[in-house]
Amino acid sequence: MALKAVFLNCSLKSSEEESNTDVFIKDVQAHYEKLGVESEVIRLADYYIAFGVEEDMEDGDEWPEILELVKDADILILGTPIWLGEKSSIATQAIERLYGSSSVTNDKGQAIFYNKVGGAVITGNEDGAKHSAASILYSLSHIGFAIPPNVDAYWVGEAGPGPSYGETGGNDFSKAAIQRLAYNTYHLANMLKEHPIPAEGNTL
Amino acid sequence: MALKAVFLNCSLKSSEEESNTDVFIKDVQAHYEKLGVESEVIRLADYYIAFGVEEDMEDGDEWPEILELVKDADILILGTPIWLGEKSSIATQAIERLYGSSSVTNDKGQAIFYNKVGGAVITGNEDGAKHSAASILYSLSHIGFAIPPNVDAYWVGEAGPGPSYGETGGNDFSKAAIQRLAYNTYHLANMLKEHPIPAEGNTL
Amino acid sequence: MALKAVFLNCSLKSSEEESNTDVFIKDVQAHYEKLGVESEVIRLADYYIAFGVEEDMEDGDEWPEILELVKDADILILGTPIWLGEKSSIATQAIERLYGSSSVTNDKGQAIFYNKVGGAVITGNEDGAKHSAASILYSLSHIGFAIPPNVDAYWVGEAGPGPSYGETGGNDFSKAAIQRLAYNTYHLANMLKEHPIPAEGNTL
Amino acid sequence: MALKAVFLNCSLKSSEEESNTDVFIKDVQAHYEKLGVESEVIRLADYYIAFGVEEDMEDGDEWPEILELVKDADILILGTPIWLGEKSSIATQAIERLYGSSSVTNDKGQAIFYNKVGGAVITGNEDGAKHSAASILYSLSHIGFAIPPNVDAYWVGEAGPGPSYGETGGNDFSKAAIQRLAYNTYHLANMLKEHPIPAEGNTL
Repeated sequence: MALKAVFLNCSLKSSEEESNTDVFIKDVQAHYEKLGVESEVIRLADYYIAFGVEEDMEDGDEWPEILELVKDADILILGTPIWLGEKSSIATQAIERLYGSSSVTNDKGQAIFYNKVGGAVITGNEDGAKHSAASILYSLSHIGFAIPPNVDAYWVGEAGPGPSYGETGGNDFSKAAIQRLAYNTYHLANMLKEHPIPAEGNTL
Repeated sequence: MALKAVFLNCSLKSSEEESNTDVFIKDVQAHYEKLGVESEVIRLADYYIAFGVEEDMEDGDEWPEILELVKDADILILGTPIWLGEKSSIATQAIERLYGSSSVTNDKGQAIFYNKVGGAVITGNEDGAKHSAASILYSLSHIGFAIPPNVDAYWVGEAGPGPSYGETGGNDFSKAAIQRLAYNTYHLANMLKEHPIPAEGNTL
Repeated sequence: MALKAVFLNCSLKSSEEESNTDVFIKDVQAHYEKLGVESEVIRLADYYIAFGVEEDMEDGDEWPEILELVKDADILILGTPIWLGEKSSIATQAIERLYGSSSVTNDKGQAIFYNKVGGAVITGNEDGAKHSAASILYSLSHIGFAIPPNVDAYWVGEAGPGPSYGETGGNDFSKAAIQRLAYNTYHLANMLKEHPIPAEGNTL
Repeated sequence: MALKAVFLNCSLKSSEEESNTDVFIKDVQAHYEKLGVESEVIRLADYYIAFGVEEDMEDGDEWPEILELVKDADILILGTPIWLGEKSSIATQAIERLYGSSSVTNDKGQAIFYNKVGGAVITGNEDGAKHSAASILYSLSHIGFAIPPNVDAYWVGEAGPGPSYGETGGNDFSKAAIQRLAYNTYHLANMLKEHPIPAEGNTL
């Protein structure tokens, strides 16, 4: 059975506009296709996602359907632009909503996100990628995801205003990082699918 | 063959003084003993560690012998106190020195820290644990360590001055976090020992 | 003419629900009343604030009316709860929207937020206050606010789940921090009102 | 009487080697010279600075003489390189040592760093400047420094390995940031010299 990956694109723009984060995500997906990983991209700005930390905030909240995709996936990648050196507000909100499931358990009593693998992809005109990655990867690991090595793929330009990823297409450094992220999420997700983390010492 | 864990205690105090981080580490070690994991604690403040980002800064630099222990271990835990809401300067230095090996490879061409597992333990009178954990875990994952779920064990007190971990012994929350960190580093290290990450798409 | 302060309460809850951040803000306001500072609290979750980095994102975006209050104020305090060790998504969004005015200038050519004073108040069950404060205060200073000493007032409880600020009322440490934040924003705002920063070397 | 500025250069390299941070600092000093601000650069790696949080850790600790320069200055600028997206271990140590004076008061009972102005200059091959700046500026404000607007001057290159500041000399963006940092620290330091923060509501 093919591995499934979900990308949450946390661009501030809905899909009516082009997103540099989306261009970056496509570069990851190109590897997943070769590896036989099925993947889907959710542009969060297209949905009405309520503020809060419940699994379902009701009153039209569309997070629950996104959450189902995450629960069904083997790999979750948060993609975010950088604003003032940090991940976007929509990325922050995605983490708050994921955190809202942090006491939900699988049938063995572990957190529901156990045996899933997390990663982060980040684009910005300049500075802030590692800070954003650290925040995303830590949050995912804190709620149950496993973090493989080298799953912080990013591209940023020189200090100050400048071209975006969509315009530059990145560089050798970002291309190598994209490849490592794709392969290592694939390798670890496979491993955890075949050898799930024993429910010993880690149930809630 | 037993798994090996190395704790780098990044307290600002040498072992002539008591370290709350050390008390915390002992609580992790108690689990490792039951699990048959051999562990060793290095109090970095006891050593002369040169500033820089080479594997060996020479002129009496004692990092190389510590690095050998890390290279030989399956699990690396950085333990740090909190100062002004962040990990200690010695923890920062330990990360700089580990980063100095980031282009060194194993016999398959992957970063030398591949197939090792990382974690963080943090104590402080108050506030700053998650920030410190995010920084440590991100840095380790960036240079090749795998980060299992729930390997950010910490205790901090209420805002403001107050008792230390050595005085309080933590609470149920920190005890559960310690257990999860010990078991999940053990589970993942075992898994990676039996099933190393394939050298496909991730060599340097 | 009295100084004006605006509090942006970045709770995830609208004002139908009680907000611990709001209780905290009231403790700051008690000082402002004695000092003759007029203050107003905006619960951002009560408004429809569009995602984006334009001053007016249109289509019903209610940020422009909030922005007017900020532009009219001498003091801006961002108040936020802590989720997973960080400021809320609404606080992140508020910063993105403020950043959207970062190239707007006053009549001397300086950034529009020059001669205004910024501060941060933070509440949470546990850990994350300093990280949140650092992010908020840095962002404000980067776009033109002056940051007085000791304007990061917070209360958090011991590690793990526990009572909220509304239940505990804080402690001596948080009370002293609240007082310093109130007085220092007042002192600096007064100073900058009487002696605005010369438009020399800092125009856009 | 001329304003005095102290730069703490937190490069990992002693002054036997060239420091990009130092080149950057010189660009700030060029403005200070025109403004009549006397300035001095301390390369911290040239000194033996003990780990700890006391004003004087004794046994050869050379921090006390550096601390005297800081106490005597009107402006303190921390300069740091970036390693793995963060300020250097020496910058972290400088903050720990400054924090060691956080309960020392001036003759009015305020923290000793009141009426001084802080700033941050940061250089790196790539990514991490804003994260480093946020940490430095927050820490300084927390212990009593005032933070003027736009005092986070930095230069970083495109993602990945690449030339350093010394080789590129920065760009228009970094030059403008350097100018704003120099002028705003000067303006605010002047203001606080003539109009010190009243000792009302903010003594320790």
